Amino acid sequence: MTVSLSQKCIAEFFGTFVLVFMGCGSAVLAGAHVGFLGIAFAFGLSVLAMVYAIGHISGCHINPAITISMLAHGKISGKDAGAYIVSQIAGAIVGSAVLYFIAQGKADYAIAVNGLGQNGVEGGSPDHYSLISGLVAEIVLTAIFLIVVHGSTSKNNSNGAFAGLAIGLALTLIHIVGIPVTGVSVNPARSIGPALFVGGAALSHLWVFIVGPIVGGLLGGFIWKLYDNK
Amino acid sequence: MTVSLSQKCIAEFFGTFVLVFMGCGSAVLAGAHVGFLGIAFAFGLSVLAMVYAIGHISGCHINPAITISMLAHGKISGKDAGAYIVSQIAGAIVGSAVLYFIAQGKADYAIAVNGLGQNGVEGGSPDHYSLISGLVAEIVLTAIFLIVVHGSTSKNNSNGAFAGLAIGLALTLIHIVGIPVTGVSVNPARSIGPALFVGGAALSHLWVFIVGPIVGGLLGGFIWKLYDNK
Amino acid sequence: MTVSLSQKCIAEFFGTFVLVFMGCGSAVLAGAHVGFLGIAFAFGLSVLAMVYAIGHISGCHINPAITISMLAHGKISGKDAGAYIVSQIAGAIVGSAVLYFIAQGKADYAIAVNGLGQNGVEGGSPDHYSLISGLVAEIVLTAIFLIVVHGSTSKNNSNGAFAGLAIGLALTLIHIVGIPVTGVSVNPARSIGPALFVGGAALSHLWVFIVGPIVGGLLGGFIWKLYDNK
Amino acid sequence: MTVSLSQKCIAEFFGTFVLVFMGCGSAVLAGAHVGFLGIAFAFGLSVLAMVYAIGHISGCHINPAITISMLAHGKISGKDAGAYIVSQIAGAIVGSAVLYFIAQGKADYAIAVNGLGQNGVEGGSPDHYSLISGLVAEIVLTAIFLIVVHGSTSKNNSNGAFAGLAIGLALTLIHIVGIPVTGVSVNPARSIGPALFVGGAALSHLWVFIVGPIVGGLLGGFIWKLYDNK
Repeated sequence: MTVSLSQKCIAEFFGTFVLVFMGCGSAVLAGAHVGFLGIAFAFGLSVLAMVYAIGHISGCHINPAITISMLAHGKISGKDAGAYIVSQIAGAIVGSAVLYFIAQGKADYAIAVNGLGQNGVEGGSPDHYSLISGLVAEIVLTAIFLIVVHGSTSKNNSNGAFAGLAIGLALTLIHIVGIPVTGVSVNPARSIGPALFVGGAALSHLWVFIVGPIVGGLLGGFIWKLYDNK
Repeated sequence: MTVSLSQKCIAEFFGTFVLVFMGCGSAVLAGAHVGFLGIAFAFGLSVLAMVYAIGHISGCHINPAITISMLAHGKISGKDAGAYIVSQIAGAIVGSAVLYFIAQGKADYAIAVNGLGQNGVEGGSPDHYSLISGLVAEIVLTAIFLIVVHGSTSKNNSNGAFAGLAIGLALTLIHIVGIPVTGVSVNPARSIGPALFVGGAALSHLWVFIVGPIVGGLLGGFIWKLYDNK
Repeated sequence: MTVSLSQKCIAEFFGTFVLVFMGCGSAVLAGAHVGFLGIAFAFGLSVLAMVYAIGHISGCHINPAITISMLAHGKISGKDAGAYIVSQIAGAIVGSAVLYFIAQGKADYAIAVNGLGQNGVEGGSPDHYSLISGLVAEIVLTAIFLIVVHGSTSKNNSNGAFAGLAIGLALTLIHIVGIPVTGVSVNPARSIGPALFVGGAALSHLWVFIVGPIVGGLLGGFIWKLYDNK
Repeated sequence: MTVSLSQKCIAEFFGTFVLVFMGCGSAVLAGAHVGFLGIAFAFGLSVLAMVYAIGHISGCHINPAITISMLAHGKISGKDAGAYIVSQIAGAIVGSAVLYFIAQGKADYAIAVNGLGQNGVEGGSPDHYSLISGLVAEIVLTAIFLIVVHGSTSKNNSNGAFAGLAIGLALTLIHIVGIPVTGVSVNPARSIGPALFVGGAALSHLWVFIVGPIVGGLLGGFIWKLYDNK
């Protein structure tokens, strides 16, 4: 079948909407009940479900760091990459808005205190890690994530059907490890959405969650080329 | 092989029995031990297991919101859809009855206090969310669920064998996020069964868990058509 | 390839060893850390792993209730079924023995208090459920388990490769729901092993965990035939 | 495609880096939040993700006990096995170093107290198990692990595509059961990395986590041959 760019962009918009609404939603609405492990599963299962739902439409990047790493390896055109990224950021903003609306319906308005699942370092880090630890963590975690993305979807990999399982559960793994450090972004769109609604430190830290994932994504792609140079 | 409508309806009856008995059972019998995360896995793994057990018989809808969304897209006939929905509701009622019987065997009769895993808003919402938050949550969560259902089972999707994994774990995800808001229905049959035994607020809120999932299911199908119009 | 009956029996012995050593081991060694949810994953992942490790050798029953249900449907001969069951019980006993040895190495000998992961009703039920609740729970849970076994491995099911995933995670689901009631057997061999070492109430309750799973397994096979009579 | 030994070694280096950085990282950075169950998922999902990312390059051993068991069965040459093991240990050391760097960025320097996810027995055992219990546990757990590895990747197994799922989740299972006893190694490289940074008891216990996994890996391979002698 032929899929138009606008159809792909609707898929990327919707997929990123789901990732942000469900992932951040697990933190905002349910974090006190399910803990960091539950939040980690929510982010990972969002990606797992969307890969099998929309992967055949757009490839299910739903993350500018993935799109830019794919662009660097010539797997997507510059024009498509730009449209993907705009769609992803738009989906993240709308996902944050719907979450904000639902969260306001809670009797004790915890949303005002808890924020909207935004990322942070230092004072905004759940366990108060330094800026440099947070930045290194985002770079390393995104590099690992992109190696799983490139490796599990490689043309040389005969088990490509399992890519959604591997990529989704890798994101769960990344959140298990990294939530205490930065709240885990590894995805600029996922950080931009909530930051716009929360403002303050979330906005002033935002550059970490744009630069870190993009650098990490490019690094992961470079490492990948070392052992799969076909 | 040829499968008769009555065989399909037995499968839908049994599958919905399992979803309600095991899902609500995890809340009623084990909720104090496994928390909301355990309950979320119970609902999702019920669907995952049943898709691989009965999917080849009936398609494993076990949810009127799915059947109605499929009907709106011409994937099932009106006659079959009606028979499916009756079977689903019957399975949910019998599942609630067996759960009620087992729960009564507990020494301290906690069932009288805890209800039967029924859904609710406001006073019946685990974290006391408003009616409008609950209704919006059910609509959005069911829309997301139906996009996973339509997408992962699409004829254009070459990884259709993974649909059971994606749909089941998407239901786990939906419960992680939504239990604090409404207890999560996204399935009218799942709400009708316990409400009949619990009565009171569960019955007076029941319309939310019939209207919300049906509207959400139709919305999800509509969004799906935007990016997969084949 | 041709597999001899003795090779199949070694596989059944080892598979049941793993199920009992790891499943009961999670309760005895780690229960205080991982809770009922962790124990539920341990039992289910034991089966998931063994299906993909030895399923192509013996079919990976590792449970007399499955072997008897298969026998009732003519999927295994009486001679092989007998040899399978003896191997399963032997594996369960050796698994309990090795677990007993390791558990004794703990500084404060908690094993003397906690038992060896045995099943029970009434005073031996984790949440003090009655005998009749425990017996009904074992029958219903085993019937559900066997429908997943028969359905996911049916010749009419084109996704048979996912059977290990569905059956393993169904056992996790069954444990999430049922541990508070009986500790969950759904498998006579799994109950016989620890009961021999623990004695007392574990032995006097043992009939419940032999009769319940066998009746439930036959019931599940009967229901399965209603909707898959090929 | 043809893969050179150096490409395979880069893959083994990187895969073991991920296993140690993420597995031990979950304990060091997030253990207080996610508990032993979260740590168990982190180790297992690291392997699951890497099998689907690099399995088609190097086979994804990322564990000297696996490489040595494969060598004993003639599935890898002695020269390649040596290069694999050196790469694995190097990856584990670098993984520990990066983790050490990030952990230092925490405001209250908990790393000084918690160590770096090292393994231990007796005083170093989380629940104070004896040396002999720890050694037996490592042998038995590694034997089980290797049977899953050999069985799920056997040429006679038509579901070999699921090997990454089975092996990864088997490692989660092994950690659920064994963390209280030794912290779980079943992998000499995973123990060597952190021990070099922590020193003291971690170094003096290190032989247990080299001998135990290697003996267990050879034992598992021997048991496997009993029922799959093709």
